[in-house]
This record gives sequence, C-alpha cells and structure tokens, in this order.
Amino acid sequence: MDDIRFAVLGTGGIGRRTLEVSQHKDGLTAVAACDRNGVAIDHDGLDVDELLETTEGNIASGPQSSPDQLSGGEPRDSGLDGASDSTPATPTDDFASDGGAAAVEGGGGGVKQHGEQAGIVASEQGDPTETPIDDIIAESDAIDAVLLALPNLEHDFIPRVAERFAEADYEGVMVDVLKRSRVIGMLDNREEKLKESGITFVCGAGATPGFLTGAAALAAQSFVEVEEVEIWWGVGLKSGYEDNRGTVREDIAHLDGYDIETAREMSEDEIEALIDEHDGVLEFHDMEHADDVLLERAGICDAEDVHVGGVLDVRSDEKPTTTTVSVTGTTFDGETGTNTFELDDATSMEANVNGPALGYLKAGVRNNRAGHYGVFGPADLMPGF
Amino acid sequence: MDDIRFAVLGTGGIGRRTLEVSQHKDGLTAVAACDRNGVAIDHDGLDVDELLETTEGNIASGPQSSPDQLSGGEPRDSGLDGASDSTPATPTDDFASDGGAAAVEGGGGGVKQHGEQAGIVASEQGDPTETPIDDIIAESDAIDAVLLALPNLEHDFIPRVAERFAEADYEGVMVDVLKRSRVIGMLDNREEKLKESGITFVCGAGATPGFLTGAAALAAQSFVEVEEVEIWWGVGLKSGYEDNRGTVREDIAHLDGYDIETAREMSEDEIEALIDEHDGVLEFHDMEHADDVLLERAGICDAEDVHVGGVLDVRSDEKPTTTTVSVTGTTFDGETGTNTFELDDATSMEANVNGPALGYLKAGVRNNRAGHYGVFGPADLMPGF
Repeated sequence: MDDIRFAVLGTGGIGRRTLEVSQHKDGLTAVAACDRNGVAIDHDGLDVDELLETTEGNIASGPQSSPDQLSGGEPRDSGLDGASDSTPATPTDDFASDGGAAAVEGGGGGVKQHGEQAGIVASEQGDPTETPIDDIIAESDAIDAVLLALPNLEHDFIPRVAERFAEADYEGVMVDVLKRSRVIGMLDNREEKLKESGITFVCGAGATPGFLTGAAALAAQSFVEVEEVEIWWGVGLKSGYEDNRGTVREDIAHLDGYDIETAREMSEDEIEALIDEHDGVLEFHDMEHADDVLLERAGICDAEDVHVGGVLDVRSDEKPTTTTVSVTGTTFDGETGTNTFELDDATSMEANVNGPALGYLKAGVRNNRAGHYGVFGPADLMPGF
Repeated sequence: MDDIRFAVLGTGGIGRRTLEVSQHKDGLTAVAACDRNGVAIDHDGLDVDELLETTEGNIASGPQSSPDQLSGGEPRDSGLDGASDSTPATPTDDFASDGGAAAVEGGGGGVKQHGEQAGIVASEQGDPTETPIDDIIAESDAIDAVLLALPNLEHDFIPRVAERFAEADYEGVMVDVLKRSRVIGMLDNREEKLKESGITFVCGAGATPGFLTGAAALAAQSFVEVEEVEIWWGVGLKSGYEDNRGTVREDIAHLDGYDIETAREMSEDEIEALIDEHDGVLEFHDMEHADDVLLERAGICDAEDVHVGGVLDVRSDEKPTTTTVSVTGTTFDGETGTNTFELDDATSMEANVNGPALGYLKAGVRNNRAGHYGVFGPADLMPGF
C-alpha cells in the first residue's frame, strides 16, 4: 500500500499518543494536527518529536473550566451545522481538544502562544488559528485519512465534524475512537452525504469498542450462533490522568445516576469529589458503549446480547482488572463454548487505543481506495464474518 | 454484499463440514462440489442435506490404499501441469479427496456408483466423471469462490490446481485450508498468473494457520514490536477420525523423524501402528505449519519468531490441550506483555476450520470484487495491521 498521509484532530492524550505510535508503523506520515487554538501542517511530514515535546502536559484548554463555560449560551459547535463554510466558526464553536473539559475560554478567550495550556501553538510548527478544523479541511486534498481524537460530550459533535468534511467534498478516510452507542446512528443518518463525498468513516476504532469488538468478531468464528459477548476492561490511569480527563469525563457519564448531560456539566471539582468518594476507582456495568451496536451491524449477534463493563483506577497505573472479551456461542455441531481474548495487564490503555486505531485507519484507506464509502464499524472491517 | 455462489473441491471431512456450516451463514450458496469420482453442480444451489447424507462415511477413496498406489508411477497430478485443458486428466491424475490416502484405485480403477467409497456419485445430484476439476472449471463463470478442501500430500498439488483455474481465465476467489509453510512460496511463484486471471487466492484459511494467525494479527495490535507468537493447539478427533485421515497423515509429516514424503508413503497399517505406539496421542513441536510465513508476510513479526505445536488425540473427542495463541511484544511505552486468545475446549476442530474458512472466503470475495488479485494470507485480510 502506498504511503498514508494523515491528520489528527485533537492533541490531547489520544491524539498525541497516536502521533507517537504512528512513528513505529510503516507507511504512515503525520502531515497535520490541530487543537482548539492552533494548527500544524506540513505535507512533507510533521516533526512529531518536536510537536510531542512541546505539547506534552500542555494541552490547549485545561481542567479549570466551569460548567457554565462548557454549557453556557448556545451549543459550543452550533456553527458547524449546515453551511459551516460560510459561517466561520469561533474558537469555542470550532473545537474541543480531548484534554479535559473543552472550550475553557468560554466566550472566545485569547490564544496563549506560550506556556501552560498553549497547546499546539507552543510548537515551532504550530500556527494560531480561530478555525483549526476549517484549516485542515482546506488542505484535505493532500490528506488520506483524518483521525478524530476529539471528545464527544455533545453526542453529535463528531458526526457534525464528519458532515463538514463531506460538505467540502473530502474524499478519504475518517476514523474516530468514540464509545457511545447512539453516535453510530447519528453517523448513519449522515451516511448518504459521506458516501457522496467519498468518505470512508470508521467509527469506534479505539481499544473499546474497536480492538475488543474486532476480537469478538474473530472469536465468534467458531460458532454458528453467538449467545453473548462480554467485554470487561481494566484501565490504570494514574500517570495518564491529566492527559485523559476528557475520556474520564465521558466514562463518568456511564455511571449509575449520571448521563452525558450531567457529566458534561460537572465542574472539575465535582469530578474530583466523585473520584475521591470512590477512592479513585470507578466501576462500570452495562455501559452504553457502542460495542453492542457495532457487533450487531457486523452481523455477529444482537446488540442486547452484548454486555460491557469495566474498572477505571485513576490513582494507579496498574490495571485494576484484566481486560477480557468472552464470546459464548453454539457450534454447528451443537456444542456450546466460550472463546476468550485477554490483554496483558502490562499493556496500557494508550497502547490498546492507538495501535488498533491506526490499524483500522489503514484498513479504512484500503477500503476507501477500493471505492467503499460510508460508515463502518471496526468489526465490519474484519474478514467478512 | 451480494450472494456468493461457491464450489467445494473435495468432499472429505473438511469439504462436507464446510457445506454444512455454510447453511448457517447468510449469503452463501453452494453450487458445486466434487470428489475424485464425481461432480455435483446446480447453479440454483445444491441440496446440501441430501449431498451430506449420501456422502457421510462414504468418501470416494478409502483407507485401504497402499503406498505403492499413492506414490507409484508418475506423480498423481502430473496431468495438471501446463496445458491441462488439452490433456484430459485421468481420475487418478485429476483429484484426491481429503478422505484419507488419495488415489486408491491406483492405475485408474473403475468408478463405483453405489455403496461404500462411492463418494459424491452416491448422491442423486452427483454425476460420475473422470475430470471433476475440469468439470468445475467449465462452469466457473457462474462461481464466485472455490474452496479447496483437498489434501496436499504433494507440495504443489494445490498450487497446480490454482494454476489450472488461472489458465482457464477464472475470475474469482480460491481458498485453501493448507498448513505447510513452503506451499505459500509455490503459490507466490504463480502470483502473476493468478493476478492476470483475476484470482484472489486466500491460503491457509482453516483453523490453523487461518483462525489463529488472524487472532495473532489482532492480538499484536497492542505492540509496536512483536517478539514471539506461540500457537498451541489441541484436537480431539475420535468421531471425526475416519473423515479426516488425510489431515492426520499430513500431521504425521510434522512428527520428529517424519517428513511429507515418508508420511505420504506410509500404509494405513503403518499409520495405525504409529498411532498405537503413541496410545492415540501425537504431540507436535516446532511444526513447519505456514503460520510463520503468513505472519511474516502480514508484517506482524519474523517467521522465525513464530512457534507452532499441538496435541492430537485420535481416541477421544475431548481436546487433549487447550488451543491458545500467545503474542508477546513491546508496547510503544516500553512495556512487555503477552496477549492471549483461547478457544473453548468444547469447540471442535471442524467448527474452528469451517467458520473461519467461510469468513475468509467472504473476505476474499470482497477483495476480489474490489479488484485485489493475487495471493493473500488470512492475516493480510485483517484490518490493515
């Protein structure tokens, strides 16, 4: 396969780690990255080391946002609907990094060129911009694939970003690492637009649902009928906590008594208090986590037969439980069995998100070049099970 | 994806079980099957139940062959080289079922229309023929995929069958379930011919290497460097023994002190004596089993870092050991870990061969329709890792 030139939207934990992992993979060249304040584009390939060094622990937008700033006024990305090209987005409208609560400057605060929370503009390669996504779209003719390492605290944020690329007639691959069932339907609703544009959209391509639904699709091959898929994950996130506050906030939305709206509106103090209350360890059951929808659409089993849960420990780097996928089914010869896939506890969440995300990105490019457009789940890209 | 019309060459254990499993899968229609004595073709779909019923325990060619009959005279498939279309093959030249030692009738014995070892001609749908493979080739315009459920006691038997389809300008998918490293190279040597014809050839698509190298390719996604892949399989084959004598003979070639030539020349009595000597349980280490070559070509690791072994018990249906794939590697953040994939002991060898074989067949068709021709390993068909 020819070289793949890719862009990363979002340089929080996931975006930066993806850039890092891509350096270990053949045939992948990072040519663009952006956060809410800036954009770095070099079609000959970014200097990833420099970019990572300058943005490490230095994410555009920080943990100090208040719920008012996040949710106040009109929706953060309201400018993205419809004719976004003719309505230049404001910084807060345009973007949210996954470095935690997004849009910290509320009504459009100033761009910091240096120091903490400057983000990508602290890099020599970064230029400040009020329209980072539009800036990437403007260069997208020379970009084969776009990884959306964005949080998705509004359900339709990622679908709407996809729509903007489609409106600009982008022909290429888009990959997200989302983990919320209902977003898949929102992408499906836009499938015609994506197809017309020539976009191959791979959704949920991170550790879970991506990696683990891929494993489930594979493990299901012993069976002619799958009765149940159990996905159970463990994440130790002590050293990665600051980089992944956005992800943690998304997880909180899956706790009993919380939903995406209440999680979005929590202040950082409230989140810290909640974590304290649980001694740093959050346990999740029956998460609405996209795995269900993605396995159903790949024909593996009914969504209702998929159960997802896990344990997150933000005060230790040790995994609090072993990540496993168990697929129970019936064989053609009438036996019932459970095949399992287990990740070593030593493999970090970051390793398990970014390797698969780039793998699915490559698979997306293969499909895109073969003319397969539309919305795909990771399990759809497995050998035609 | 549109309906896939497929043919099965060989109606021994693997061929028949594939036909059976295909009935549980959407979008697959069996339209042709053959063994060394006969062919059944119905472009509207075979009556698989009838075919299975009449050929169960009734394989064309039986266990009573002698080494002379197998190896005597000119090579069994000598007629397949070069212009096979103009040189009608004799029954013994044309075909070997996987129902045990092939070519039982030696110098071209008569076709039995009824009774034991009649094979496919015992079915209402079967017609006797001296050129079963050519008969299928003649109908191949209406066949999307061909599963080669043949034994491969001559290394180049399957590659040469592929060549015959290419010479007839077949455009479609061919899938085998072989398990021998050196055959991959023989297929690669013919890749240009296959590409010119429009053939997508998926090799080694059974349980191992197919299923388990797919799992290894997936499990490798946590790592930026894979240090070792260990594949360890267990097969309990008591009730499936008669149907799978060809496979057992192939396995014997992997035992210390044996090779493919000595295994091919063993009489059934000698095989029984060997099995007796081991109390029915054969243990294999460092098998030359194609998994190594297939993982290397997929870019997962070096062939020499792949180790394959296992235990076969022909006197019990219980697996003598649990089938596992262990992939050890280093993550981008410098940790070393081992991800594992484990098949339930209750899943039979047949279930684990035929589900994946049909899955890879579907993947092959997807690729073929996208214009991807040539030779592919199962792991090549995984998301572009």
